[in-house]
Amino acid sequence: MKRNLINPVKGTRDFYPESMAQRTWLYERIRAVGRRFGYQEYEGPALEPIALYAAKSGDELVKEQAFVLTDRGGDALAMRPELTPTLARMIAQRQGRLPSPVRWWSFGSFWRYERPQKGRTREFLQWNIDLLGVLGAEADAELVAIAAEFFRETGLDDGSVVVQVNDRALMESALAEAGIAGEAKGSAFKLIDKREKLSAQEWREYAGSLGFVASQVDALAALLENRDLWRESEGLVRLFEALEAYGARDLVEFEPSVIRGLDYYTGTVFEARDRDGEFRAILGGGRYDDLVAEVGGDPVPGVGFAMGDVVVSLVLKKYGKMPEIRPAPTRVLVTQFSAEMFLPAIRIASVFRRAGIETEVYPTPAKMGKQFRYADQQGIPFAVVVGPDEEAAGRLALKSMASGEQETLRPEEAIDRVKG
Amino acid sequence: MKRNLINPVKGTRDFYPESMAQRTWLYERIRAVGRRFGYQEYEGPALEPIALYAAKSGDELVKEQAFVLTDRGGDALAMRPELTPTLARMIAQRQGRLPSPVRWWSFGSFWRYERPQKGRTREFLQWNIDLLGVLGAEADAELVAIAAEFFRETGLDDGSVVVQVNDRALMESALAEAGIAGEAKGSAFKLIDKREKLSAQEWREYAGSLGFVASQVDALAALLENRDLWRESEGLVRLFEALEAYGARDLVEFEPSVIRGLDYYTGTVFEARDRDGEFRAILGGGRYDDLVAEVGGDPVPGVGFAMGDVVVSLVLKKYGKMPEIRPAPTRVLVTQFSAEMFLPAIRIASVFRRAGIETEVYPTPAKMGKQFRYADQQGIPFAVVVGPDEEAAGRLALKSMASGEQETLRPEEAIDRVKG
Repeated sequence: MKRNLINPVKGTRDFYPESMAQRTWLYERIRAVGRRFGYQEYEGPALEPIALYAAKSGDELVKEQAFVLTDRGGDALAMRPELTPTLARMIAQRQGRLPSPVRWWSFGSFWRYERPQKGRTREFLQWNIDLLGVLGAEADAELVAIAAEFFRETGLDDGSVVVQVNDRALMESALAEAGIAGEAKGSAFKLIDKREKLSAQEWREYAGSLGFVASQVDALAALLENRDLWRESEGLVRLFEALEAYGARDLVEFEPSVIRGLDYYTGTVFEARDRDGEFRAILGGGRYDDLVAEVGGDPVPGVGFAMGDVVVSLVLKKYGKMPEIRPAPTRVLVTQFSAEMFLPAIRIASVFRRAGIETEVYPTPAKMGKQFRYADQQGIPFAVVVGPDEEAAGRLALKSMASGEQETLRPEEAIDRVKG
Repeated sequence: MKRNLINPVKGTRDFYPESMAQRTWLYERIRAVGRRFGYQEYEGPALEPIALYAAKSGDELVKEQAFVLTDRGGDALAMRPELTPTLARMIAQRQGRLPSPVRWWSFGSFWRYERPQKGRTREFLQWNIDLLGVLGAEADAELVAIAAEFFRETGLDDGSVVVQVNDRALMESALAEAGIAGEAKGSAFKLIDKREKLSAQEWREYAGSLGFVASQVDALAALLENRDLWRESEGLVRLFEALEAYGARDLVEFEPSVIRGLDYYTGTVFEARDRDGEFRAILGGGRYDDLVAEVGGDPVPGVGFAMGDVVVSLVLKKYGKMPEIRPAPTRVLVTQFSAEMFLPAIRIASVFRRAGIETEVYPTPAKMGKQFRYADQQGIPFAVVVGPDEEAAGRLALKSMASGEQETLRPEEAIDRVKG
């Protein structure tokens, strides 16, 4: 019988208290991992000039996926589809005034116009974590180790997930050996990126449409089967050595088909997946050494990754690692004995709050049974009753909802009891 | 010497770690106050159908201030300029399946196309807190008491700020006695709302432009001087009694010129201001009993308020109540003795992290003095050095940055020392 119910925008989510509690749980895991490695929290605007993405994010993200708008001054803006360009802009804006290295993380909202489906929403949350100002495989290893630490923190280090690593520079030289260079390199990266998403037949057809001849496609296919290719990359050899020292080696493997869709990556790239391959990538990242210069700064090398909240939540649920979380329950419900006793009830509630106890007041003088039932349903462990007799004697009745026992106490005694 | 530096969008803010730490401090105060009164955190989407605001938010907010966009399906969307319509929609969507009362709070981003100036940005954060399902002045008092509690929590309860309360129903009957009713009522509310923003002369001219005659303006002016008008309202009398019980009475006063700009308020309205009157309202809210029905639900009464982060931050700074907050500092810097000693350094860092200690590794084998200087600048209390001798002996050197003392210890001993 809903009349004219206004629906939410497709692909957005309402976070009722239960789902907000899960979101907060995820945020707290992310914050703990970031802090453990010495990273500081930051945040950028939701709106950016579209030019910020035009340079290097790739056509798909900007032209097909971004929510764009024109502000009242006529400027083209985008609701941010990703954070790395904002990070590069913020670094460029304060160049010379920031400590080096920069170790920063963030957790905020992003928007992409995608077809809503399992694992995708149009408005999503994303964890970004980046290390800037440092070159080298060891810096890359720190970020891969942080990804592994997140999986340890959430219990997904039991073989459920794997971090797959590759190096774009390694792939470039391997492609050159296969006679693929120059303009064709970008097409080859696109083709590699589609390897897991298409059937073998579809993939060969797609290769043809990109202008590759059969011998090139064969060479490429062989390349993608070569599990030992990483041994030819000094960087990847050092990366895996460092991951050993981080205690993260068992969660990481070389995967030549990992290339990542974003144009700005220049070296190491990586992503994490569930071992069953049921879901999209859980997180993805890599090294981007030119991006700060692209947005107008002096060059600063960077490496980092991003993790959306949607896929990781599905993976956590699948493997039984997402805890059931109650929204922060109140400690005490102060009931309303009668309308006349409402002001004394408020006064008692204020006394509990001043003692640091989370306390709510039942808002109407409903039947006592209904008020107790509310406490039970909400998981509130204690109920307080203040009737005229208690009020006159400076006492209150404290009921434990678990045992059902009720005692008449002075407020200080009740506070001690509740604090347990 | 910046070439093509891409600037942020006007009216948006970059939260570098220092300002992010202040934002987190504010969020934590807000969360503590909400929980203390038994409120649960929730969040809605940033994007809503523009129709959600069309009904009751008022023309200024929707037509002049909202950032609007058309999605690829042709629907008109708005980046949310406020949260209450989203809250009403979420309540309507789950009607009959939510506990009653609903006590919810939220802290998120909002967008309004305003002229950037002191106290205003186009992208801002807002605390929203609401109690739904309860009628009566006592429910209104709970929200006013929560506002007062926030000021107590942040130290602004020392006379720096005041919560000013009024009742639209009281004003309507007072206006009717002054011969202002029907259509003219809305104009009178607009006129009242402008009282503090215009000079006496400008205000009378504005009144004329709205069609009021001199006798009506005189009556209205007299009304706005009447500090005892609240005694004619049974609701306000009960509200002030309840505020006494909440221990919040001294922070609250009656103010007949408070009317609030939003169209959906039906009864009590209130706002908080600094006593010097230097800034815009710090927070504002009131009772809205028709909004859930307006968005298609069955009627549910509600009362709540919203507080933007910009004005309150200016007020906190003015009165010296905004603490200097360092972004979460790392506990330990593991230095790099030499490139060869990097892997042992990573291993030691991992041992510290497993012990729950926030630990970062200096990313290059720079001169030791430079590495210690970095620890000092970042406020990191301990530095660890692992040279070949320490490595061979299973030891490390632990330096206290405060005292400059350095000891050679086993890792377990160093962990105990750092945990202090």
